[in-house]
Amino acid sequence: MRDGEFAIIERHFKGITQQSGVLKGIGDDAAVIKPDAGLDLVVSTDSLLEGVHFPDGTRPMDLGRRAMCVNLSDMAAMGAKPRWFTVALSVPRDIAVEKWFAELSDGLSYIANQIDCALVGGDTTCGPLAITITVIGQVPSGTALRRDTAEVGDHIYVTGTLGDGAAALDMFSIGNTNSFCERLFEHFYAPRLRIESGLRLREIASSCIDISDGLVADLHHVCSSSGVAAEIDCSLIPIHAHTRRNYPDHSLHWALSGGDDYQLCFTVPERATESLKKMIFEGHIDATRIGLITAGDGVTVIDSSKANTFTQEITDYSGYDHFA
Amino acid sequence: MRDGEFAIIERHFKGITQQSGVLKGIGDDAAVIKPDAGLDLVVSTDSLLEGVHFPDGTRPMDLGRRAMCVNLSDMAAMGAKPRWFTVALSVPRDIAVEKWFAELSDGLSYIANQIDCALVGGDTTCGPLAITITVIGQVPSGTALRRDTAEVGDHIYVTGTLGDGAAALDMFSIGNTNSFCERLFEHFYAPRLRIESGLRLREIASSCIDISDGLVADLHHVCSSSGVAAEIDCSLIPIHAHTRRNYPDHSLHWALSGGDDYQLCFTVPERATESLKKMIFEGHIDATRIGLITAGDGVTVIDSSKANTFTQEITDYSGYDHFA
Repeated sequence: MRDGEFAIIERHFKGITQQSGVLKGIGDDAAVIKPDAGLDLVVSTDSLLEGVHFPDGTRPMDLGRRAMCVNLSDMAAMGAKPRWFTVALSVPRDIAVEKWFAELSDGLSYIANQIDCALVGGDTTCGPLAITITVIGQVPSGTALRRDTAEVGDHIYVTGTLGDGAAALDMFSIGNTNSFCERLFEHFYAPRLRIESGLRLREIASSCIDISDGLVADLHHVCSSSGVAAEIDCSLIPIHAHTRRNYPDHSLHWALSGGDDYQLCFTVPERATESLKKMIFEGHIDATRIGLITAGDGVTVIDSSKANTFTQEITDYSGYDHFA
Repeated sequence: MRDGEFAIIERHFKGITQQSGVLKGIGDDAAVIKPDAGLDLVVSTDSLLEGVHFPDGTRPMDLGRRAMCVNLSDMAAMGAKPRWFTVALSVPRDIAVEKWFAELSDGLSYIANQIDCALVGGDTTCGPLAITITVIGQVPSGTALRRDTAEVGDHIYVTGTLGDGAAALDMFSIGNTNSFCERLFEHFYAPRLRIESGLRLREIASSCIDISDGLVADLHHVCSSSGVAAEIDCSLIPIHAHTRRNYPDHSLHWALSGGDDYQLCFTVPERATESLKKMIFEGHIDATRIGLITAGDGVTVIDSSKANTFTQEITDYSGYDHFA
């Protein structure tokens, strides 16, 4: 890290560099950290580019929050406890002022402090606005949740509500006529962390993935890597009442195929469903059953209520793909 | 990671994803890795942007090699053994073709395979050409080399030769009249890894830093964080004969202040100098003594031989700074 850049980072990120397990934080060629004994480490990297992953003109505070939440969603999906992270920033010269770094830092810290995750390194360069975060988390040995371990007969669940990510994108889009919605704004920039749910699911779920590309696309990843099929019932899919009411023609489609939901989709063997129901009843996890893992391949969407107008067969599992 | 991108990465990076300590590599929400018991982890992140850190038109193979070497230089400076790395790529749509990814992958693997370092994760987005690598390495507990632990009376050493990074940049610059030099080209795109030197220095050096911003700037980091001063003798500084001959007016200045050398600068207590000399004599490390740590602050450059025309006092320690 260079001198001037380092000074900027040192000044503004100090509050989130001193958590536990950091032997030597920012300020050397690399950080030195101490994982707890006998645990597996979980590592994930995600980049957000202006105009691709967040709208032009996003406030640095919001960029910081979103960058953290999107990355932490992968940790939640693995059932990992996030411990440390690094940030690589590319910032245009005209916005690279103290105030901007201070606000970005506030956004990162706001989320990182909620889960005691320490910033241990970074790099700042002058270029188009982009932020890459690498998170390192921990799980007890052999307990990481995977996507390739779903089995025929498992029940399929999702956390929270779906379709809000796509609704937020619609709200940000040019020509949008719906009024500003604080709930969707907050969902987009600080989707609720599912870390705690992920930790609890380690003992219950047979597989787990986070929904970043859309339910069907991500569930298809689970199916193809596990060698199974999935049948989901669109009348069971949880959609927020506001989203359903404000976007009656789109909400179900968005819940199935929209991206940026950052909820967990997980499978639970029959024998563990009672434990899960208890956790749901006691308020420890907010999850809804939406379908079943079956033999075969691919994702089938049915409508047991016949109440939905959605009849389109799912043939495109790609979700959002930057190079498609 | 998205589907299309993932397929590209999966296809081309497979050769460098299966090293030891990888429980679950690319293909899930995050990788699961197993550090050896009782060790400290060392983490470092570095970004390279086109036009800033490498010339426009750099071949993907060369970009891959340079990105790895620059990042691994931080591991060498910490005395760490690199184990795992992640890659975040931003690639313009027009060059994001199979062949380009294959060649980049060749470059990354070429270096990673030399040191048994495994690719465990990544993210690919469409945008201006940039590559961010995060490396995770290991050191026995408490043995990481730091920059804030130099003491008065320690001797100052550097590995290899200095000034080659700046000479390479000059060769790449517009208007350069010197002929193409394969040695400088290779130094720029694949600076010699000093990992092995770093591992050996753990038992000998009192402090260590890698020279990325220039000898004086980086040695100044050691001095300011250790609370000491340094006196270096410019007649002792190792400069490659070709660089000295081809750039007689610049080579010493470049060796002192040029960037991109990726050598190690380290300090050794008097009591350990005999061990170091033995290692140098036996060919285990290529290092040259250039000065002494003294009381005070700042870096002083003297010329004991009086042979150099260099008399400029060092007042600017900033090195190369993107936001200066």
